[in-house]
Amino acid sequence: MTATATPTTSLDDLLLWFELSQLQERYVATLDQDRLEDWPPLFTEDARYEIVPAENADAGLPIGVIFCDSRGMMEDRVVSLRNANIYEAHAYRHALSGLIIERIDADTAKMRSSYIVVQTRQNGESFVYQAGRYEDEVVRTADGWRYRSKRAIYDTSRVQTLLATPI
Amino acid sequence: MTATATPTTSLDDLLLWFELSQLQERYVATLDQDRLEDWPPLFTEDARYEIVPAENADAGLPIGVIFCDSRGMMEDRVVSLRNANIYEAHAYRHALSGLIIERIDADTAKMRSSYIVVQTRQNGESFVYQAGRYEDEVVRTADGWRYRSKRAIYDTSRVQTLLATPI
Amino acid sequence: MTATATPTTSLDDLLLWFELSQLQERYVATLDQDRLEDWPPLFTEDARYEIVPAENADAGLPIGVIFCDSRGMMEDRVVSLRNANIYEAHAYRHALSGLIIERIDADTAKMRSSYIVVQTRQNGESFVYQAGRYEDEVVRTADGWRYRSKRAIYDTSRVQTLLATPI
Repeated sequence: MTATATPTTSLDDLLLWFELSQLQERYVATLDQDRLEDWPPLFTEDARYEIVPAENADAGLPIGVIFCDSRGMMEDRVVSLRNANIYEAHAYRHALSGLIIERIDADTAKMRSSYIVVQTRQNGESFVYQAGRYEDEVVRTADGWRYRSKRAIYDTSRVQTLLATPI
Repeated sequence: MTATATPTTSLDDLLLWFELSQLQERYVATLDQDRLEDWPPLFTEDARYEIVPAENADAGLPIGVIFCDSRGMMEDRVVSLRNANIYEAHAYRHALSGLIIERIDADTAKMRSSYIVVQTRQNGESFVYQAGRYEDEVVRTADGWRYRSKRAIYDTSRVQTLLATPI
Repeated sequence: MTATATPTTSLDDLLLWFELSQLQERYVATLDQDRLEDWPPLFTEDARYEIVPAENADAGLPIGVIFCDSRGMMEDRVVSLRNANIYEAHAYRHALSGLIIERIDADTAKMRSSYIVVQTRQNGESFVYQAGRYEDEVVRTADGWRYRSKRAIYDTSRVQTLLATPI
């Protein structure tokens, strides 16, 4: 960036930020309100979703807690979670920050952000369940922006791996 | 939503989001800076404010930790809190996310969001004090947007009920 | 504010908010992604940065954990942190809220916000490391908005003071 001109904020940047930020808010609201059935529709048909520990992601070993490479697999997971008796009821509350958008072209972008998830289990205790970063690829579809890829890469190692719920 | 046209973001949506998001930021700043006296003016005269556990809210039992059905009651509570000797000094820090706005008409809207509140007591320990969701009704007044109803519905059960402070 | 007219949101307010909010997001992203070398460039050459406990800040005693009064000092600190063997690897995740902007003139503003920082150490535990408030002065430069002063004023007392990293 040269120092000869003040960078001006284009209305385009603002609108792109707003649209993608709204997608993030919907994502969080869907999970925090336990509307799991509304979670797969936030992705494209062939989208990839995974939850992976930071040490694996950084070493290029994509072996994680959840791996889905289609919306159908996400829908199956939701059905499994709803049917599982060993699924302990809990509430998630997300906090997001540090959203950085990299525009690829008019209909494609990459995003990075930090997340903190607080969980409350049936005993009523609230605690930091997981912290990490999202790395997302998003695409503009006829229905608005959708995730084509979303990776939740967690710092924490105390993470539930059996019947994990989306983060 | 049909798949025949790309939804476009209207500047109206952006401006409404900005105005309501600014109200939320002021709300948080007021509580986190311990400016309790500036908290009732964020509500309409006849507004309702309550803090209620999720299990009661979901069962339709509105019995909570705080219940005010006018701004006057909120002002009384602030006076009580300031005068109470048993009130242990503490600091709150809020994190909000997942804000979803439902526009009712030009001057009325409903909002939902997730909150996490970290508390630091006099011993200097910071911990997740409460997590939950806000359900708000807001109305545009001559002074800008104000809450007509705000419910803090908490997941956590470890919640201080004696001389509770607003969340 | 008189009650005779509805306050209208100017596009100017929205754009200023967006630009400053983007600075905050970049700040968080830089620290949360451990890109410490990109941290000093977010400040002006003669900027001041400090981390100070709330009880000192409120008593006017600016004795804190970090005190830098130039970008050069910040750069030196980053070099020290990178070279220190006793530096335990950790990840930070910030959550920000309650951003209040006070416009001073066209190119200067003050900001206040709340922060929560979750840390994950090598043992994989994630916990609330620090909570507090930022008090910032920002200035518009040829390269965009930069911090001229940033104070992280923490509520928590359980804070690492030896080789502290920026918050």
